[in-house]
Amino acid sequence: MRILGIDPGYAIVGYGVADYDGVRFSTVGYGAVTTDAGTPFPERLEAIYDDITTVIKKYKPECMSIERLYFNTNTTTAIDVAQARGTIILAAQKSGIGVFEYTPLQVKQSITGYGRAQKHQVMEMVKNLLSLSAVPKPDDTADALALVICHGHSAGSSYGKLNAMLKGKIK
Amino acid sequence: MRILGIDPGYAIVGYGVADYDGVRFSTVGYGAVTTDAGTPFPERLEAIYDDITTVIKKYKPECMSIERLYFNTNTTTAIDVAQARGTIILAAQKSGIGVFEYTPLQVKQSITGYGRAQKHQVMEMVKNLLSLSAVPKPDDTADALALVICHGHSAGSSYGKLNAMLKGKIK
Repeated sequence: MRILGIDPGYAIVGYGVADYDGVRFSTVGYGAVTTDAGTPFPERLEAIYDDITTVIKKYKPECMSIERLYFNTNTTTAIDVAQARGTIILAAQKSGIGVFEYTPLQVKQSITGYGRAQKHQVMEMVKNLLSLSAVPKPDDTADALALVICHGHSAGSSYGKLNAMLKGKIK
Repeated sequence: MRILGIDPGYAIVGYGVADYDGVRFSTVGYGAVTTDAGTPFPERLEAIYDDITTVIKKYKPECMSIERLYFNTNTTTAIDVAQARGTIILAAQKSGIGVFEYTPLQVKQSITGYGRAQKHQVMEMVKNLLSLSAVPKPDDTADALALVICHGHSAGSSYGKLNAMLKGKIK
């Protein structure tokens, strides 16, 4: 199962792609889509939509795992993040792939087994689970890879076992 | 100047189209794009994007006037409205038309000259300014038409005068 993880935003959209066979992850690619503050907002939305569509075309993931949004303090920023997230989900829908969303708590729990884990602990686990030599930068990219793992663990609980059985990894 | 007004939402997106010559409005069309609560959210976003694109193709407005969002109470609803609004702005951008946004206060002031006007007063003015026999339903459609008037008055302050001069209405 190839999973595209997304950390939504409008200045930086982190993305990561990995394959999961129900036991381990193989990292395929990762990076970030960025837009400039000086660019009119409709053009930024278009750049995000187009670039995420390009990422989907390039890596051909089966699904998108994207962080769920909560609004706390800065609602102006949050509105713009939500607007960008809408166009990212639209890109997935137009590309014919399913969308799954997870809260930051679910991501932490899935990766470290502990909802109150420190960010650096989560990042270290992402590095290890994906067999990376270092934690990817920017943070948005590492967060996107965390979403890949979270969905793998979640969906993998049934899919992964079946797949692993077919490959003879679980008897 | 042909203006498309939008009252953003994800269950109901109100829209209205009118021409403004700097003096008066001629209503061209109005309605609402609706999506069902039972439909997965990515499909609802796609329906909104596609239907607004169709409205733009049909009426060929020069610009979109859309309500600015503020978050107060129900943030879960607000996130989804913002996500839908992102795809509506994307539809305008992909169709090559400019996007202008106005606060509810600006809309009220522009139409009634009074920021604390009652909703029914705004609706009556919309009906009169657009020469309609009744206030359009649902409210989202009437709100969208209010955004057309607001942008006409705002952009019309320079454009309208020039246009009116060319037609000999202002000596």
